[in-house]
Amino acid sequence: MTSVPPLPFQTVHGIPIPLDWLCLAPHPDDAEIGAGGTLIRLAQAGRAVGILELSRGERGTQGTPQVRVAECARAAQIMGLSWRGQLGLGDGELTDTPAAAHALAAALRAVRPRVLLVPHHKDRHPDHFGTYHLSRRAVQLAQLRKADLQGEPWRVSRVLLYQGNADIQATLLVDVGDVQQEWEAAVQAHRSQFSGEAISETVTPEIIERRRARQIYWGTLARVRYAEAFEAEDALLVDPLAL
Amino acid sequence: MTSVPPLPFQTVHGIPIPLDWLCLAPHPDDAEIGAGGTLIRLAQAGRAVGILELSRGERGTQGTPQVRVAECARAAQIMGLSWRGQLGLGDGELTDTPAAAHALAAALRAVRPRVLLVPHHKDRHPDHFGTYHLSRRAVQLAQLRKADLQGEPWRVSRVLLYQGNADIQATLLVDVGDVQQEWEAAVQAHRSQFSGEAISETVTPEIIERRRARQIYWGTLARVRYAEAFEAEDALLVDPLAL
Amino acid sequence: MTSVPPLPFQTVHGIPIPLDWLCLAPHPDDAEIGAGGTLIRLAQAGRAVGILELSRGERGTQGTPQVRVAECARAAQIMGLSWRGQLGLGDGELTDTPAAAHALAAALRAVRPRVLLVPHHKDRHPDHFGTYHLSRRAVQLAQLRKADLQGEPWRVSRVLLYQGNADIQATLLVDVGDVQQEWEAAVQAHRSQFSGEAISETVTPEIIERRRARQIYWGTLARVRYAEAFEAEDALLVDPLAL
Amino acid sequence: MTSVPPLPFQTVHGIPIPLDWLCLAPHPDDAEIGAGGTLIRLAQAGRAVGILELSRGERGTQGTPQVRVAECARAAQIMGLSWRGQLGLGDGELTDTPAAAHALAAALRAVRPRVLLVPHHKDRHPDHFGTYHLSRRAVQLAQLRKADLQGEPWRVSRVLLYQGNADIQATLLVDVGDVQQEWEAAVQAHRSQFSGEAISETVTPEIIERRRARQIYWGTLARVRYAEAFEAEDALLVDPLAL
Amino acid sequence: MTSVPPLPFQTVHGIPIPLDWLCLAPHPDDAEIGAGGTLIRLAQAGRAVGILELSRGERGTQGTPQVRVAECARAAQIMGLSWRGQLGLGDGELTDTPAAAHALAAALRAVRPRVLLVPHHKDRHPDHFGTYHLSRRAVQLAQLRKADLQGEPWRVSRVLLYQGNADIQATLLVDVGDVQQEWEAAVQAHRSQFSGEAISETVTPEIIERRRARQIYWGTLARVRYAEAFEAEDALLVDPLAL
Amino acid sequence: MTSVPPLPFQTVHGIPIPLDWLCLAPHPDDAEIGAGGTLIRLAQAGRAVGILELSRGERGTQGTPQVRVAECARAAQIMGLSWRGQLGLGDGELTDTPAAAHALAAALRAVRPRVLLVPHHKDRHPDHFGTYHLSRRAVQLAQLRKADLQGEPWRVSRVLLYQGNADIQATLLVDVGDVQQEWEAAVQAHRSQFSGEAISETVTPEIIERRRARQIYWGTLARVRYAEAFEAEDALLVDPLAL
Repeated sequence: MTSVPPLPFQTVHGIPIPLDWLCLAPHPDDAEIGAGGTLIRLAQAGRAVGILELSRGERGTQGTPQVRVAECARAAQIMGLSWRGQLGLGDGELTDTPAAAHALAAALRAVRPRVLLVPHHKDRHPDHFGTYHLSRRAVQLAQLRKADLQGEPWRVSRVLLYQGNADIQATLLVDVGDVQQEWEAAVQAHRSQFSGEAISETVTPEIIERRRARQIYWGTLARVRYAEAFEAEDALLVDPLAL
Repeated sequence: MTSVPPLPFQTVHGIPIPLDWLCLAPHPDDAEIGAGGTLIRLAQAGRAVGILELSRGERGTQGTPQVRVAECARAAQIMGLSWRGQLGLGDGELTDTPAAAHALAAALRAVRPRVLLVPHHKDRHPDHFGTYHLSRRAVQLAQLRKADLQGEPWRVSRVLLYQGNADIQATLLVDVGDVQQEWEAAVQAHRSQFSGEAISETVTPEIIERRRARQIYWGTLARVRYAEAFEAEDALLVDPLAL
Repeated sequence: MTSVPPLPFQTVHGIPIPLDWLCLAPHPDDAEIGAGGTLIRLAQAGRAVGILELSRGERGTQGTPQVRVAECARAAQIMGLSWRGQLGLGDGELTDTPAAAHALAAALRAVRPRVLLVPHHKDRHPDHFGTYHLSRRAVQLAQLRKADLQGEPWRVSRVLLYQGNADIQATLLVDVGDVQQEWEAAVQAHRSQFSGEAISETVTPEIIERRRARQIYWGTLARVRYAEAFEAEDALLVDPLAL
Repeated sequence: MTSVPPLPFQTVHGIPIPLDWLCLAPHPDDAEIGAGGTLIRLAQAGRAVGILELSRGERGTQGTPQVRVAECARAAQIMGLSWRGQLGLGDGELTDTPAAAHALAAALRAVRPRVLLVPHHKDRHPDHFGTYHLSRRAVQLAQLRKADLQGEPWRVSRVLLYQGNADIQATLLVDVGDVQQEWEAAVQAHRSQFSGEAISETVTPEIIERRRARQIYWGTLARVRYAEAFEAEDALLVDPLAL
Repeated sequence: MTSVPPLPFQTVHGIPIPLDWLCLAPHPDDAEIGAGGTLIRLAQAGRAVGILELSRGERGTQGTPQVRVAECARAAQIMGLSWRGQLGLGDGELTDTPAAAHALAAALRAVRPRVLLVPHHKDRHPDHFGTYHLSRRAVQLAQLRKADLQGEPWRVSRVLLYQGNADIQATLLVDVGDVQQEWEAAVQAHRSQFSGEAISETVTPEIIERRRARQIYWGTLARVRYAEAFEAEDALLVDPLAL
Repeated sequence: MTSVPPLPFQTVHGIPIPLDWLCLAPHPDDAEIGAGGTLIRLAQAGRAVGILELSRGERGTQGTPQVRVAECARAAQIMGLSWRGQLGLGDGELTDTPAAAHALAAALRAVRPRVLLVPHHKDRHPDHFGTYHLSRRAVQLAQLRKADLQGEPWRVSRVLLYQGNADIQATLLVDVGDVQQEWEAAVQAHRSQFSGEAISETVTPEIIERRRARQIYWGTLARVRYAEAFEAEDALLVDPLAL
């Protein structure tokens, strides 16, 4: 009887089915703040959408890992995610190491995302640019037939960068005007971060107002009311009928 | 009885109905060479697609305006265009002047394109970067209610740059593998340019081989066989379901 | 008795004294929307600050030149400007011509600004990038001893670009949190543009909300509440004590 | 009797004489595909040219290290290389570590290249950008007198990036029209990769057609038939007589 | 009685008081050469200014750690520094590791700089770009309340890059004309490096002439006689009254 | 008997033979200051090198057209130029007009340069960026068989930008250490500009010291003593043997 190697992650919500879009979040709440509206729109349209947290955010000033995992599950429900997972890497230590790449690549093979959202390398937080660099290695590893890795080889089709704390060179804008309520609720689900005293410019009750202003900023450029911004590093294959 | 001001262009093919996509070509054949495959794909999918030549190419070494307009009509048929027009500005003199902007703006109001393809400003040919700069003014003028201009105000939704003779920073790639035959036939319709002796690096019988190689170059980056490349200068509002 | 050549502009507010900062506005209200908070801060600190409109905005859908000049005067008062002028060039025709450069250079000599704010060349509106290009020529002309131009040669020390409708690469941010009320009042002084029906994405009653969101966007990056963004094209000589 | 420390590499072809140009290849065949024509031209002109593979490509789907080393030797002969070596680092693990930098620096000291070709950091494959970053450290280490490293200090004069799978900002183009036959033979020597079924977009029998199309793409920009593209990150000291 | 953990650095000059500006130097003399004039100006104006060497430069061809620490102390005196420290990391090994980030973050907490100067990532020397990358992690770590780190959390307000051996995209220039004598004396204090035979393009008696020429280069752009150049990666919050 | 149309320029030195390199100078002395060392090196090596002034510099504060043409002739002799001409366009009016392009294109046909040096478009002086833009049109016009232009069609092979008053992104550096004496003499030949009182940052007796410092700046980056910097906008076809 062969033993099945354990999955490299813990499931927080749903089941790890093949996904259409997967968003990598260094810490709980990063995905909601940076790309939540887009993820909700996709889920509402019936797409299988997921979020994978790489760390438990255990070094954050507020909230415990236990509290935060519950907040993640609640937000996943609000957003209509198919799956949300936790990779359990060390908060403050997200960087491109062989072990971390191995774990992330195995996760990619398990949920087989077509589109991958990753943090922007211009973000000041080392866990953010660390996740970006780590994801480049893991994406390559996941598709390598001879990699010493459980699961079938998987090739991600597109990688897009979402906005964290830096001013990015947006190449794509997504209208998130119809999902404002859900988006706000999903962010507010991370109650430990966004209530009480402000701790930093992101961990603050002002988060909704500030990030909504950002959506208006991009929305104005796109001639819609609210938009989220993404950056594609490579030229993007598109269907001209959709332009 | 009020007199109707004459249209600012001559129709070479079809009728000037409202268009979905319009490609601005400094000279006959520029649109086919740079964006032909994409235009054919759109036309085959039922979209109203057009080309507007800004000059008759009368300063080219080969071909006469009469010959070239016939070639344009033939190519339009092959491509399935809804309309093809000729603005009649001076070859070698395409630049951002009030009169030229007025003529182009009136044409934009007449055919009301949603997406506008323009030459890239990095092209070495002054008519190419001149058309780019001219188009920026005309797009603005066309939407101005108080402009001294016939027709209803019209706002173009998207402007994309297509590739001429320069290496561009492509942001969008379009798979043109299924329309290779039609694309080659459309380019070859400009017989006066692409038969006989080679005159320059574009006016040459090698044109198909060289531009197909370019499609393979971009296609390899997009993991398809043949692709055309475009550059969007501003962030592009997209439907995430189409990514 | 020698005749004094007429000044190349009309004064709308104050008197044309030597200025510390001057903002060039293609149309009435552009300066308030793009750089109003910064100008107010400077004026409140006792600096001589001015705005020069290059056109009367006579092609705008709403408002007449008479109405708009009154709105300009009212806004100037709110902002505490030392001077506001009107160059009277043609709306929709702001571009780098010898005559326009001559007029603007003479104006620069008359008010002798140390710092000059100009629109960004990435703006879609031809009057905006036209003003940018025109200003480069006028700045040079103004300092030329042998220029056929009234007034003493004058050299502008710094040129900064302010934000219009495009996403810029901000290099400088200015905290405008303390002047929100005055800024809103100055923009609202342009009542003809910002009341009634929305005409475009700038001529709209939403203007305050959208531009304030923009200030929050930049403010978040600067760790303040509201900020305006500027771009310096050349390296900027700074006093390290002020950093 | 002093013991001589072992050389940090295995020789696959020729002898490790001082080289004029050296190309660093993450895996066997990378150098031929990206810069083969240029290397052949140099070798035909009598220059001492070499390739150093950093790994044996043992994680590739096809071919064994034994087969691939034989293919490398055969290609070296076809190209007229003076030397080809194998550093024996782990495939999939090429990254900037002290041990890897030490080995590469020692190799640089042994073959003393004047010009160094390295993979581009924009390539998606971690071994490619890993080799780029590793080479920056090794180049510095090799010239350090006090480095704990066998051999005489050596300073590489120029570093150029060659093209892998990404669209680069080419600054230099080299005409490879006269060596097409040798180039194709050298690539085809890597038979294990380029015969049989296609495994990925590089490991495919189409490789010659796709890379030749790339040479035509760059050749058209350079007004020649076939060219390879390189990027210099720093300004390049050149002899104006050679321009 | 609780034991106080040892400070992570050795003091070379002065005492580790809270600083206004701190310059991170990979090796002794890097700060003087790249930013010495600016640091002297600040110190002369009464600001608390410091330098922290990350390594002892023990791999340099000339000078011993003992000699170089004495040179550092002497230069500190000339510059009027409040403090100069030595982190004692390995020369040639400055890179972004957890241990190094921990040490640097603790140092940042100890001297609490408002403005931090770091080497430019474009420099060829791995210790220079290594220090840049290391500083990004340490800055984040230093402000983290839950970091396993002695001292109170500290947030650096501004990070500026100073010029090493590469051509940078300067965004800020500082007039150093009034401190030429002190600057030259401070550089010359590093006698072991800048007397005798030239070892490399930086370790050479020509250093003053070459770096003064650089100051003239930037000075000419700033319309002053001598200037030092800095690059800010993010938009900089500035007081408009100081522009 | 057919009349021969007059040449579009006046010869100041030598005869208008076919040239290898031609430098376009908006005003007398621009070529010497920006590219003089390189031109001298080429001339010393036996290449046919020329300079074409586009204006007589008649708006400069110092010097008359008569004086300046004599200075030009003297400098040409010192530099060993084969030819120096004067296009006679208006100082302060150098911009991309049909008439100016016609004149410059005819001049290009007359002296048939292989390499063309043009001012950089980042220069602040409108005559400098005007000359850049004008040259793009003239280069195209000169090669057009059907252009209404005297002389045989001529295609310039390479266009390089030389440095004026702005900080450029140098891609090529040329060692000018061996021609320092001739270069200084050639600049000093423009006595009217570089003696007496300083008028601006270029018209000053300090010019030699400031521009020599610039040569040291670039020289240090190139590991030589003095270098001039150039920027190529397109990828450059090079002989790898010359690298």
